[in-house]
Amino acid sequence: MALRAMPGTSEILTNLFEPKSIALIGASKSPTKWGFLILMNLTLGGYKGNIYPVNPKETEILGLKAYPSISDIPGHADLVVIAVPATHVAQVIRECKGKAKIALVITAGFGELGPGEKKMEDDVVRAARENGIRVVGPNCNGAMCSNPACMYALMPSYFPRPNTLSMASQSGNVGGIMLRMSVLRNCGFGKYVSTGNEADLHVEDYFDYFLNDPATDVILSYVEGPRDGKKLMQVARAVTPHKPIVMIKGGRTPAGSIAANSHTGSLAGADTVFSAMCKQSGIILVNDIDELFDVGLALKRQPLPRGNRVAILTTGGGLGVLCADVCHSIGLEVVSLKSETIKRLDSVLPPWWNRGNPVDLVAGLTRSSVTGCLDALARADEVDCILALGMGFGSARAKLLKDTSLYQDPDVKKMCERSIEEDMNSARAVIECIDKFNKPVLVVSEAAVLSKEDRKGSLELLESNGVFPYPSFVRAARVMKCLVERQRFLRAEGSGLHT
Amino acid sequence: MALRAMPGTSEILTNLFEPKSIALIGASKSPTKWGFLILMNLTLGGYKGNIYPVNPKETEILGLKAYPSISDIPGHADLVVIAVPATHVAQVIRECKGKAKIALVITAGFGELGPGEKKMEDDVVRAARENGIRVVGPNCNGAMCSNPACMYALMPSYFPRPNTLSMASQSGNVGGIMLRMSVLRNCGFGKYVSTGNEADLHVEDYFDYFLNDPATDVILSYVEGPRDGKKLMQVARAVTPHKPIVMIKGGRTPAGSIAANSHTGSLAGADTVFSAMCKQSGIILVNDIDELFDVGLALKRQPLPRGNRVAILTTGGGLGVLCADVCHSIGLEVVSLKSETIKRLDSVLPPWWNRGNPVDLVAGLTRSSVTGCLDALARADEVDCILALGMGFGSARAKLLKDTSLYQDPDVKKMCERSIEEDMNSARAVIECIDKFNKPVLVVSEAAVLSKEDRKGSLELLESNGVFPYPSFVRAARVMKCLVERQRFLRAEGSGLHT
Repeated sequence: MALRAMPGTSEILTNLFEPKSIALIGASKSPTKWGFLILMNLTLGGYKGNIYPVNPKETEILGLKAYPSISDIPGHADLVVIAVPATHVAQVIRECKGKAKIALVITAGFGELGPGEKKMEDDVVRAARENGIRVVGPNCNGAMCSNPACMYALMPSYFPRPNTLSMASQSGNVGGIMLRMSVLRNCGFGKYVSTGNEADLHVEDYFDYFLNDPATDVILSYVEGPRDGKKLMQVARAVTPHKPIVMIKGGRTPAGSIAANSHTGSLAGADTVFSAMCKQSGIILVNDIDELFDVGLALKRQPLPRGNRVAILTTGGGLGVLCADVCHSIGLEVVSLKSETIKRLDSVLPPWWNRGNPVDLVAGLTRSSVTGCLDALARADEVDCILALGMGFGSARAKLLKDTSLYQDPDVKKMCERSIEEDMNSARAVIECIDKFNKPVLVVSEAAVLSKEDRKGSLELLESNGVFPYPSFVRAARVMKCLVERQRFLRAEGSGLHT
Repeated sequence: MALRAMPGTSEILTNLFEPKSIALIGASKSPTKWGFLILMNLTLGGYKGNIYPVNPKETEILGLKAYPSISDIPGHADLVVIAVPATHVAQVIRECKGKAKIALVITAGFGELGPGEKKMEDDVVRAARENGIRVVGPNCNGAMCSNPACMYALMPSYFPRPNTLSMASQSGNVGGIMLRMSVLRNCGFGKYVSTGNEADLHVEDYFDYFLNDPATDVILSYVEGPRDGKKLMQVARAVTPHKPIVMIKGGRTPAGSIAANSHTGSLAGADTVFSAMCKQSGIILVNDIDELFDVGLALKRQPLPRGNRVAILTTGGGLGVLCADVCHSIGLEVVSLKSETIKRLDSVLPPWWNRGNPVDLVAGLTRSSVTGCLDALARADEVDCILALGMGFGSARAKLLKDTSLYQDPDVKKMCERSIEEDMNSARAVIECIDKFNKPVLVVSEAAVLSKEDRKGSLELLESNGVFPYPSFVRAARVMKCLVERQRFLRAEGSGLHT
């Protein structure tokens, strides 16, 4: 028994993501309770609105005045977060009448456990319907909005910086990993919601909201068992001509499906049908959690390629060979370069360069040719997109040498400084190519997912310009394939080139 | 024209990897020359033997006495490293007569460029043959041995700590990436050689050497175009019953093959034939550079599973569902747990646990049940191997809180300390399971490839016990599949269970 999209769902979800005040029912002083941790995370995240902890036994929690019940808070709460035992949730929702329009129910122990508990979930929905309240969850790990709300009503303690990637996840666990990765990769996050059991609001309701949210450019999603598959696809079909949806699907095999059934009590559908529906609806399906960010970040920043013809720029032969293999096997054409392109490359590369694609920069101590090569490839008609492999390495030796006595040698010092400068120039050239020629350039560097310290310099420069390097050519090639497919979808839509 | 395995190749290669003295011909004072950087790397790496820089124009380089020619060095050099222009290499080799038995030729500009230069390469081989010298390369980026030689005769400046994984690579570039990753992942490296154009010594000669090298447990390799495919497979067939060979193959598609041809001048064979030959020879083929280490590290430390029946322990439902999907799709059986196993799990998990595989630890603030779950799964007859997802997370919140005023609260502090301790206990339980029940346990944590700082604590404990966590369940599942296939190969060999 579910309330389906009532008019105004989108407006009500503004209360979820950008509430001016939040009441937390079940707020606690005990660090072993979610009612403590969520309050802690709201505080640590720097939430700017009013927080009203509700707990009849306390007068103050974490320095905030506590209220015996929701009816005691001053005025109303845009959002009420509920973290009380499952048996109390329906009653608590009833008490919210007139005080809130949307409830984020963290509490688990409902329909995911069995038919008895499902009844209790139905009671919650009934209570909500009777009192004009919409429900997120139950059995979810929270929601967040980085900008402007600084609202982190979350179980996990991660506070990603702002970005325009937003996510609706049918798994709080997968969502939590995404939140953590967004911090580790320093790529940020826009809005996130764990949809839980979807007793009321479904994953597609959030898609609909994100469509109209100016702070969201790309929609990410984990879907396991859609409550209303037809509606999900209808909404996706309306969203994807305007904003891409990147999805990872759980339960695509019998083993995963059995696991999904025990997890959210949902039965995953046949994979081939689901995949076909996704294709038709313009949903981009990916296979690993990492890929959600990999693809999402590229869709946000990179122009779409006109076609599938890829040029590979590589700092070494073997890497180029392997990358060409991967490109070919996933349907990217490792294009034959035209003679005029070769001629342009002749003018920047040493005479013995390989005169083909991949373009091998040739083992050497300088990387000064990267800029000219990128320019030659980006302006070539036959090239739709570029993979730049092995970027940002010159700095590694420089960092090492700085800590040795060799750095006293003025020649060594000069070499180090030049390496760093060349890497910076390469990064600048990548950004310029993207912006000047309107062609995607994906960068590969095995330092891409490392600590801030290891990314300092050219990788940091790329990241601060929205170009997030990939740690392997396999991952970068897969992303490029998704960009190609996004372009094909939009072209078929007749909405022309995405810029 | 190549010299094929003369008797004593293995002994001669001891001079390459564990030389007591090294002459570097083409040693230079200029930091823009490889002859400087290789000398620098030999010094920085802490090589313990004698180094003889050879350069007629210098009397001292990097604080070492320089010699006008190889004939001027005291005694002989176990290894001679050559970094002079291509046109000089044959002559330099002639001068090595009686002074060295093996030459590592860094210099490029030979057969990889064309037929003219190939003649020059043949001259080098002829000079070597006439003077009793074996040749590594030309056109390679060096060789290294971490233990006991501390010998880093390399173009790249990476100095991995000791390990028993060794590699022969037909691409210096791919090898260089592996060296860098071994430092970033802190997993170390045993011996490494860039085989270059293989004018004399082929990739299989190094396999043969590694077979008899007590310091090598697992052999890694990048192969693009084998010079003698039949011999390669013969040697592999002799090696793999004793030590695994993990290989990545370049040029498996038309696009990669064209690239390979321009890279090492070798024509890659048809992929299906090569794959079939690898299977027959017990070679484990992987698809990404990362996977070489992923699989190699597991083969080195983990027991082989008796079969393909996997149990998944997960910190959350969605992650378990996705992992079950991947396992199923690559041929691992997500096994149905027997009632006695369920009963054992009942005693450590809360009453509402999902009673199936994947075993969901259930969202909760404590991870105290990991130890009991691992024990129950490892002792179950129906379970051959275990994937443990989401390990090492409790510490993340603790680290965050340590820097806030909340840490003053004794309850918060206690919670943090408990989280860290529980993560440490989980790590100890993984190690115990592997050693006590002789079943592989692969750990997944998205912090696995991060900086040392992020890995401190439980991940560090795992690593120091040889258990290297994987950053994604896809990577871990693929590794498990390789362990299963290794076991099948050995069983078919009749060599019984590998321990």
